[in-house]
Amino acid sequence: MLSEFDTIARYFTHPAASAVLGVGDDCALLQPSAGMELAVSTDMLVEGRHFFTDADPCQLGHKALAVNLSDIAAMGAVPRWATLALALPQIEERWIGRFADGFMALARRFEVDLVGGDTTRGPLTICVTILGEVAAGRALRRDGAQAGDDIWVSGQLGDAALALAHLQRRIVLEPDEIAACLPALHRPEPRVELGRAVIGIASAAIDISDGLAADLGHILERSRVGATVEFGALPKSSVMARHLGDAVARDALLAGGDDYELCFTAPAWESARVQKLARTLDLPLTRAGRIEKGSKLVVRDEEGGTMAINRRGFDHFA
Amino acid sequence: MLSEFDTIARYFTHPAASAVLGVGDDCALLQPSAGMELAVSTDMLVEGRHFFTDADPCQLGHKALAVNLSDIAAMGAVPRWATLALALPQIEERWIGRFADGFMALARRFEVDLVGGDTTRGPLTICVTILGEVAAGRALRRDGAQAGDDIWVSGQLGDAALALAHLQRRIVLEPDEIAACLPALHRPEPRVELGRAVIGIASAAIDISDGLAADLGHILERSRVGATVEFGALPKSSVMARHLGDAVARDALLAGGDDYELCFTAPAWESARVQKLARTLDLPLTRAGRIEKGSKLVVRDEEGGTMAINRRGFDHFA
Repeated sequence: MLSEFDTIARYFTHPAASAVLGVGDDCALLQPSAGMELAVSTDMLVEGRHFFTDADPCQLGHKALAVNLSDIAAMGAVPRWATLALALPQIEERWIGRFADGFMALARRFEVDLVGGDTTRGPLTICVTILGEVAAGRALRRDGAQAGDDIWVSGQLGDAALALAHLQRRIVLEPDEIAACLPALHRPEPRVELGRAVIGIASAAIDISDGLAADLGHILERSRVGATVEFGALPKSSVMARHLGDAVARDALLAGGDDYELCFTAPAWESARVQKLARTLDLPLTRAGRIEKGSKLVVRDEEGGTMAINRRGFDHFA
Repeated sequence: MLSEFDTIARYFTHPAASAVLGVGDDCALLQPSAGMELAVSTDMLVEGRHFFTDADPCQLGHKALAVNLSDIAAMGAVPRWATLALALPQIEERWIGRFADGFMALARRFEVDLVGGDTTRGPLTICVTILGEVAAGRALRRDGAQAGDDIWVSGQLGDAALALAHLQRRIVLEPDEIAACLPALHRPEPRVELGRAVIGIASAAIDISDGLAADLGHILERSRVGATVEFGALPKSSVMARHLGDAVARDALLAGGDDYELCFTAPAWESARVQKLARTLDLPLTRAGRIEKGSKLVVRDEEGGTMAINRRGFDHFA
């Protein structure tokens, strides 16, 4: 007797190559690799808060896994396994199939096995827990930044927040501009290779999910240091550059959420290695400032003045 | 700057004794034990479906962890770590504090470290992922039952479903009766010690979360065997015994959800060891039937007739 749950499970079942026992028992059984530590993270996405009610299910499936892969990336770990819990208001096979397409395509690309899950009726809510592995004692943490270190960021910042601001009518983008920014919001690319590559180079790392100011702030707090960031140095798209006169855009660049780029710190003498890595990975890595003694985050504008930081990142209860 | 999220996190923070790095980085870092496999399970509980809107938050915190511990118990694993994702409609410190009390008290009792989590605003939803360890190749699975094996169940069955039926006005219990049944519904006790103890004795095991008929059905399906269960042999409380003339009670005993007892199969020659274990653990273990060739689950009443199985367990979308 196939229940409707089984119907759902079918979309997510694929041979769990690296699991001893996958979906279908009380627990999945996994064999961790010898000498490795396990990196674990969990994220919950709620309709109307983390995504719009009419969100494309394929993009949503991608993003639900991507935000978790981004946490694994920020530790320099290799993603291995994931579980997915899903509350759905009703069973729409087409929706579920498309969600599974987006989720599983990204899982296959990063060789992540979906080893367990739960499905229930309820307001649309997605909870992913991800497990990765990293050599014992080698993980990138938030607490290793030292005064004098360079601050690096990957990719370009703020396009996701700019797209969101447009959708929320807080800024107006041209059709070609919103088309250019939407992928950053809907299909973020977790920087897993970068995270693994900066082990041994970076002194601290974090993924920029709440905006650079907030996430760099976490590094400063945990490392007990301060920093100066050069606003003019922040990597930006041509759309962002065009709208930088608007406070909404400036805020998106410095404090917008949903970037899923990495921010890491590294000793100044590692600069050449970092720049070489950018070429190897074909991913822009930009020096955005420097770690300093103290505890303050100072952002300098292009004239050398101090900018106000309007928002220290996205607080779900703010 | 403390955000409201930090306020919440405070309730759940305790020294993570067995984690390399606990809450407060992109991921937690755990050191799995050499030679062990990792058992992983995840469950999502939704207000109005898995618990009432006015559920006592302390009991809810207990139950959210208990149902996951029960999955670990069914594998014979030792629970080690958990993550908790929580969507809350609003921040009520008293509610959160009581929820954390219930959750953390059970976590401490089983030496489970809460190593990560996520909190967001949304319809009340609780998602727990639990990680346990079990010696490689030794886990209890669903697929090892053999014709001739005895079927054992722990504790007493159906009191939780009976209490729920009373709360839903499908049956009427006396005040002392509902008082006796409610703990089974609100504060289930995961059978972690039992699961560990039957490794090497049991041929298959499952936890009874969807009702005996459905969960034993999973063992039969995965093991490609059938079974006969003696209805009269099923362990029941005095309240259950008193109401057994009512179809609602019979259904609760055989197919009620939320029992969180273990059902396991074992060769007949292990009977004395199982009975000794019951005394050691001070936990009733009752032989409820026998595994047979074929694929059918037959339930015999006290006169030897075949009973209809009304419901093959709780399907959230049924």
